[in-house]
Amino acid sequence: MTKNNNEDIIILDHGSGGQLSQELIRNVFLKHFGKSSAAPLADSAILSIDSNKIAMTTDSYVVQPIFFPGGNIGKLAICGTVNDLSVVGAKPCYLSCGFIIEEGLPISDLELIVKSMADEASKCGVTIVTGDTKVVERGSCDKIFINTTGIGTLMDHCEHISSGSKIQPGDKIIINGTIADHGMAVISKRNGLEIEAKIESDCAGLNYMIEKILKYSKDIHFMRDATRGGLATVLCECVENRSFGVKLDEENIPVNEAVEGVCELLGFDPLYVANEGKLVAIVSSSIADDVLAIFKKDALGKSARIIGEITSENKSMVVMKTGVGGHRLISMLSGGQLPRIC
Amino acid sequence: MTKNNNEDIIILDHGSGGQLSQELIRNVFLKHFGKSSAAPLADSAILSIDSNKIAMTTDSYVVQPIFFPGGNIGKLAICGTVNDLSVVGAKPCYLSCGFIIEEGLPISDLELIVKSMADEASKCGVTIVTGDTKVVERGSCDKIFINTTGIGTLMDHCEHISSGSKIQPGDKIIINGTIADHGMAVISKRNGLEIEAKIESDCAGLNYMIEKILKYSKDIHFMRDATRGGLATVLCECVENRSFGVKLDEENIPVNEAVEGVCELLGFDPLYVANEGKLVAIVSSSIADDVLAIFKKDALGKSARIIGEITSENKSMVVMKTGVGGHRLISMLSGGQLPRIC
Repeated sequence: MTKNNNEDIIILDHGSGGQLSQELIRNVFLKHFGKSSAAPLADSAILSIDSNKIAMTTDSYVVQPIFFPGGNIGKLAICGTVNDLSVVGAKPCYLSCGFIIEEGLPISDLELIVKSMADEASKCGVTIVTGDTKVVERGSCDKIFINTTGIGTLMDHCEHISSGSKIQPGDKIIINGTIADHGMAVISKRNGLEIEAKIESDCAGLNYMIEKILKYSKDIHFMRDATRGGLATVLCECVENRSFGVKLDEENIPVNEAVEGVCELLGFDPLYVANEGKLVAIVSSSIADDVLAIFKKDALGKSARIIGEITSENKSMVVMKTGVGGHRLISMLSGGQLPRIC
Repeated sequence: MTKNNNEDIIILDHGSGGQLSQELIRNVFLKHFGKSSAAPLADSAILSIDSNKIAMTTDSYVVQPIFFPGGNIGKLAICGTVNDLSVVGAKPCYLSCGFIIEEGLPISDLELIVKSMADEASKCGVTIVTGDTKVVERGSCDKIFINTTGIGTLMDHCEHISSGSKIQPGDKIIINGTIADHGMAVISKRNGLEIEAKIESDCAGLNYMIEKILKYSKDIHFMRDATRGGLATVLCECVENRSFGVKLDEENIPVNEAVEGVCELLGFDPLYVANEGKLVAIVSSSIADDVLAIFKKDALGKSARIIGEITSENKSMVVMKTGVGGHRLISMLSGGQLPRIC
């Protein structure tokens, strides 16, 4: 990254579909995605699927800055899509990657990002099977945007999970750890706050941990990863137009001290701040303690907590018992929080 | 589009994951994608698949301008991905859409684009099942970028098509119509050329026409849509490191007169200009005339022609017999053509 002559940066011709495009594919993408790419140069990858029910999800990642404590846009793009498949009860199998790159991006930066993607995909047991690269002029995008689309096979007894049709009063709400780490890591880095070093994104692929609880019990009623909009948004969406409510207990919601500090400093409510490795699971009360124990045994669930329950009162509402003993109505984020957090 | 107050344009909060995001999804995306969206608000769509071999492809569309004669970025995003699935012998089934939108885009423009996508998806018989929207600040992207990722089920006897493993000397090369229309329509519009009115993008979904020839014969050896890099790039890739060559006949390659004129005016070689509704099929010589006849009966193949053949001579090379009787070696595009054509 020290010398940025034309050989070290992305130029428009890297996206022309001609020789330079192919060199970029070979020297950067295939170098890291390697044999895992089923059809790097063909129009489509041909894949085997051993289920007649699949899940499909897509996300574009535009996070700014592209490198932040605990990850980068590439790692995020893998984890986010793996998690979106996992929370509907699917086993993530195949991912596609679409890159939109701004002319001038150092190729070394691209390579760091691509390497993170390959590492994370391997960790999560998913294969990157097809991709696309477009290059736009300086000023027409902000460094790099990545779309990842994923497909997975639906696990047995999981069809109800995405709709939450089995949620009922008495169910317990569990989170696998502290909230708001990702959002505040990105914001701290963006604002050049010195405290940054203490805060790391929680960006992680949750698929193996989720598989454990799904194998343990058929009474997992709902799961959602609490990304944009944070924990509050997940719970609000969950009760919207439903005949039950949510009772949260603020004292049980885990937040890192440094994250809480920066939230206060900058005026953010951690309930609404994005996470990238946090799962909200709603489960039968009879298995709640066991699910909590499974989470706690996993490196990604050490700080898991039961944070509330589903109630027959307060229909369609999320009510939080606050630390000082009062009650606060948690409403849907109406905008005005963080742009480009993922 | 006459008054652009805050109610008429995209603002950052439309991408926050909160209430405004949901309103945008309901008022624009669901309005047009409608019931066809399997899981607009869940993390993943759950889909039925009736084959154990599927094809998966991804493309990001960054075309500039976003509206051009014969189409817009939305129509392009559907057709391109449908075609990428079709040319490997798959029946396109499901698409995801990822939108990256610049703050300030008129919502009416977004709606025109989304409506085109819905219309084109319906025409091609594919379902848009899941999506994602991100909004970035003014100047951080150029109006709108769209990623579409598609999955389709592989048709019987088609596994060889994507690799071209059955291509052999004597095979005929067929194209379903005139070349360079898409690229020159976009460039004309971009440059404000008056001739623009005469040139329209060929942007079209080719899946039904392709299905006809695949059902007709097992001797379709290879297909590819000639997009970025044009006809020349497809053929160069096709012979690269293979034990055969291509002999093209310039006189048989169909080019619209107006397109040829603008190409000459602006210094483009139509062989390298992008198409978005043109298919190169390489087939056994014994069925070439029949395939040609099937193309010609289809609205998208009226100007189809046999443009050359596979030769045992000129290994790994594409040689074109020119109009004046000479021979020209066609090499891979080395860059320097058109950025943001798709």
